[in-house]
Amino acid sequence: MPQQDRAYATREAILHAAAEEFDRLGYERTSLTAVLARAGLTKGAFYFHFPSKEAVADALIERQSELWAQVRESWRLRGVDPLSALHGMFAESADRMASDVVLRAGVRLNADREVGYPGVPSTHVMWEKLVAAYVIEAAGRGDLRAGVDPEAVARTLCGAALGSRLISSATTACTDFPQRIREVLDHVLPSVASSEWKLSGSQTASEPP
Amino acid sequence: MPQQDRAYATREAILHAAAEEFDRLGYERTSLTAVLARAGLTKGAFYFHFPSKEAVADALIERQSELWAQVRESWRLRGVDPLSALHGMFAESADRMASDVVLRAGVRLNADREVGYPGVPSTHVMWEKLVAAYVIEAAGRGDLRAGVDPEAVARTLCGAALGSRLISSATTACTDFPQRIREVLDHVLPSVASSEWKLSGSQTASEPP
Repeated sequence: MPQQDRAYATREAILHAAAEEFDRLGYERTSLTAVLARAGLTKGAFYFHFPSKEAVADALIERQSELWAQVRESWRLRGVDPLSALHGMFAESADRMASDVVLRAGVRLNADREVGYPGVPSTHVMWEKLVAAYVIEAAGRGDLRAGVDPEAVARTLCGAALGSRLISSATTACTDFPQRIREVLDHVLPSVASSEWKLSGSQTASEPP
Repeated sequence: MPQQDRAYATREAILHAAAEEFDRLGYERTSLTAVLARAGLTKGAFYFHFPSKEAVADALIERQSELWAQVRESWRLRGVDPLSALHGMFAESADRMASDVVLRAGVRLNADREVGYPGVPSTHVMWEKLVAAYVIEAAGRGDLRAGVDPEAVARTLCGAALGSRLISSATTACTDFPQRIREVLDHVLPSVASSEWKLSGSQTASEPP
């Protein structure tokens, strides 16, 4: 293997091993020693790639952030209506998280940084605004029932997605998160969408990661 | 103040000061020093009442557990239908948590112990079973729409309640939790309840804590 490929493989091995630990134990309880043991690497190899445990967490958080931008863009390109896009993005996100520990760890690390640190600008607020924008667009197309408050819908969906992820993570290592997120969508969207609205577009990613 | 009352007051002051810190920072990041400074107490006074930080957390967890049993019992005594009781208990819980930092800290500590410790018997599983029992009872009375899965409803409500609490805690110190939990109920129950079902009973506690 050329040196550059080997370096890349080592970096990925560190990210994956760290993700396994972070996903199970969270940031605080994860030890660098356990990560190295899992990856079969020396401290020297680790510090060649990352200056600290925090830097690995930063890289995992950055990666999940990039992925969500890609998921949004892929659903934009499908050109489905906004409620269908929301349904598709929530379902796809859960599917990806159930199957990808690197993504799951990044999401957990990002959330853990904020919950318990009051005053940190919140990803939750950002997500709620983003989801509300889709619901507002749906309202403009006449896809909502009368009296539905788009911001309230966004708060409900984001809260339910967060709590479902945490319970799924604690009880089934996220295995049942795809089912749980679809149950949330099935219980919330009928109260929100007009009786004429119909779900369109595939509910899962056309190209798996 | 008689000595017994003074001892009780000191114990409550410790619980309250610890709750303020745990609620803001979680278990790991809360220091005994900060708790003592907040309560205006010495280490000696603290150790007279509790052997450790963990023992204070245990007491707070125990207290919230007792309170939920009381809330359930009070709603049982009202004799309202099971979906109305669920609505009332979720709303009352959120109201109490928004106004009571001791309760809020106990709930957070209990949840934090489990999330991130795979294999610990989960309060989430217990709550989901408990909520499902109400929805199953509602099904038996014909209060549900055809095809509704009581376990799925329980998963959605418990997930949404957890996530709403965490986002509310991170963004508004739980101030908007009562609003968020009512939004969840308003978005989920119409998809679950039969068109004949009507909410009955007060939505808030008749006797504040």
